[in-house]
Amino acid sequence: MGSYKELWEKLNLDLDAHESLLEVLGKFYGDIYLTQQGRLRGIEYLDFVISEIHGLRIKELQEAKNNGRKVIGTFCIFVPEELVLAAQAIQVGLCAGAETGRELAEQVLPRNTCALIKSFVGFKLSRLCPFIESCDLIVGETTCDGKKKAYEIFEQYVPLFVMEVPQMKRDADRELWKSEIYRFKSVLEDLTGSWITAESLAKGIKTVNRRRRVLQRLNELRKAVPAPISGRDALLVHQISFYDDPERFTNKISILCDELEKRISAKEGVVPEGTPRILLSGCPMAIPNWKLPYVIESSGAVVVVEESCVGTRNISHLVEENGKSVDDMIDNIVDRYMKIDCACFTPNRERLNNVVSLAKAYKVDGVIHYSLTFCQLYETEAFKIGRALEKEGIPFLSISTDYSMEDVEQLKNRVEAFVEMIRG
Amino acid sequence: MGSYKELWEKLNLDLDAHESLLEVLGKFYGDIYLTQQGRLRGIEYLDFVISEIHGLRIKELQEAKNNGRKVIGTFCIFVPEELVLAAQAIQVGLCAGAETGRELAEQVLPRNTCALIKSFVGFKLSRLCPFIESCDLIVGETTCDGKKKAYEIFEQYVPLFVMEVPQMKRDADRELWKSEIYRFKSVLEDLTGSWITAESLAKGIKTVNRRRRVLQRLNELRKAVPAPISGRDALLVHQISFYDDPERFTNKISILCDELEKRISAKEGVVPEGTPRILLSGCPMAIPNWKLPYVIESSGAVVVVEESCVGTRNISHLVEENGKSVDDMIDNIVDRYMKIDCACFTPNRERLNNVVSLAKAYKVDGVIHYSLTFCQLYETEAFKIGRALEKEGIPFLSISTDYSMEDVEQLKNRVEAFVEMIRG
Repeated sequence: MGSYKELWEKLNLDLDAHESLLEVLGKFYGDIYLTQQGRLRGIEYLDFVISEIHGLRIKELQEAKNNGRKVIGTFCIFVPEELVLAAQAIQVGLCAGAETGRELAEQVLPRNTCALIKSFVGFKLSRLCPFIESCDLIVGETTCDGKKKAYEIFEQYVPLFVMEVPQMKRDADRELWKSEIYRFKSVLEDLTGSWITAESLAKGIKTVNRRRRVLQRLNELRKAVPAPISGRDALLVHQISFYDDPERFTNKISILCDELEKRISAKEGVVPEGTPRILLSGCPMAIPNWKLPYVIESSGAVVVVEESCVGTRNISHLVEENGKSVDDMIDNIVDRYMKIDCACFTPNRERLNNVVSLAKAYKVDGVIHYSLTFCQLYETEAFKIGRALEKEGIPFLSISTDYSMEDVEQLKNRVEAFVEMIRG
Repeated sequence: MGSYKELWEKLNLDLDAHESLLEVLGKFYGDIYLTQQGRLRGIEYLDFVISEIHGLRIKELQEAKNNGRKVIGTFCIFVPEELVLAAQAIQVGLCAGAETGRELAEQVLPRNTCALIKSFVGFKLSRLCPFIESCDLIVGETTCDGKKKAYEIFEQYVPLFVMEVPQMKRDADRELWKSEIYRFKSVLEDLTGSWITAESLAKGIKTVNRRRRVLQRLNELRKAVPAPISGRDALLVHQISFYDDPERFTNKISILCDELEKRISAKEGVVPEGTPRILLSGCPMAIPNWKLPYVIESSGAVVVVEESCVGTRNISHLVEENGKSVDDMIDNIVDRYMKIDCACFTPNRERLNNVVSLAKAYKVDGVIHYSLTFCQLYETEAFKIGRALEKEGIPFLSISTDYSMEDVEQLKNRVEAFVEMIRG
């Protein structure tokens, strides 16, 4: 990727450290992804996107910026991309899945902060993320204490706008969230100089829905036995959905799904029938946080669905497409986002029901719950998930971890024992 | 306190463990409080209240319950006691300041949960708190992730109502909070069978304001040099304000303040002039969490003000008393509570300004920030507080700790070094 050096220099990246990062990432990807057997042809798209993760896509973003478009970075599925697209801007989910810059982050954040938050602050402070550096605006939200307060530190380094996500789902909460959507709309219009019109918003809604539908289709196909795609590859599809161009992404994954259908018709799988099927539930896994899926799939099991923001939580609901005016459409957007079963809500019984339903629909043999250490929301809900699954007789394992590789052996032991147990 | 055995038995306390708890608490209080020199006569009230902490006050609550009054427990200064009193109920702040029941709490909560939360769950699960057992309703709130999610567990063991505290301070937040106050009003009226009237609410507002005023008066007197009262005793006054009868409390502290005024007129202090004066800022200190004030005051300094929920944050603002109708009064209540500078809000610049102002007004020589370990809100704000004080040239020490005694020696070393440094 030497040809991007000028681009990275312009973005003021720490070039030497960045080169090392890409090397490590490449090796990590090779070990975890390229060693897999029986991958689909359509997966080439994923490999290509990852190999160009800080290259081609950044170049595209810079070209778009040169043509007057704005780039909006996010860390959360509550930020309504429909509006961003309607304002002719581009939304990218910022990764925050590596331990990069942890020492720098810990100089401004408590040590008891989750790895994801330390990661985005660390990436910024160490000048290693060309996505962050490409953003005209980063949109935060109040989904957890850690992020809410970290943004107050982060805003000293990046242009930041924080949306308030309510904590319950009553009428007053819906009103609050609606007022936040309108506030975001104004901010976007001011930033881009583009008015959000009924036409542009309808288009934005359709584009995002199409991407959700293709991911729903992918997940639907994963219900097949034997599993037609590895959990790692499927997770990667979900991860890439956050930052590749939505139209291109939808087309590529559509082709991948065609291929999957053929494989399923031929009763072929990526693993033998009888391989224990796992639902992975909990915190989002940002690129390159592939540690736990790798551990699970190296232990003789296969992940068939991710109940997470990088998974079902991001795609479960569509925005109704029947709105005529901007206000109607915003009402539909408000309704859709208020259905998200994030652990930031109290109570959040939907999530318990959803996990049980997913476990049944995907015919899983066990559920592994993953919390980022210090994520009080998901760490606490893990207890309730465990109880709900126990009632259904579904095996359950709860894991808290971060991005370091120090606990890989210990995780392997725990996961192998779990897989052994459910294999019976 | 043998005469209360029947009472505790009726409340289904674990009698043996409870006896041990009271013994430990008595000894702890003796060591930390009764060894102090130059205490005021009016302090006898505090000693008495503490010696009867699980006795006389519980008996009073039970008698009130027998007369048809309801008891409402809380953990947060956002729960508007004005409404509780107006509904003829009694509000008690539940302590949660001891390590009691930690092992049991950790069976249902993540280990990475702060000591305060583990404490209230632990007290319940180990059947050691007669206040919790006396409550007809416990009111939670969404001020932090830890409590928000812990309440979902706690509600399996106690009658619970959770209020949503918003996370910003815009119009939509005020509306949300207002709707929560009305929801709380309905719940109280249903529970007590008493309508909240303009008359009863006006009385409730006056009662709580009077208690705030006497605590404001106490704090005002603590600006005197030399410090007329120890930080430990003053903290205890604030702590007791949460659970003693408000009228009695106000009268007793008023007498204490008269005595303080005389001492100040005589230029007498509880410590010599020149003793380093400390502002203690951060998380609330619930009974019997006296560890850090004790460490500070054993290190040759004196705490002259607590910037905390058990301190200035609880008393800084009065509810306007000009409301005529219930709706007017509720508007005034909403306004008052929305002024609280809790770290749950983002941004929360008021707190930075308030800490700096307090440091100047109380002529402090240094600020010690106290966070409960795993309290992401206050642990993160500590960084900003430190920077704000640095700009003003005010020495600052940040401490994260819990309720265990294991780190006392380490804390002593850090605090002694800090006191040595500011003494210059």
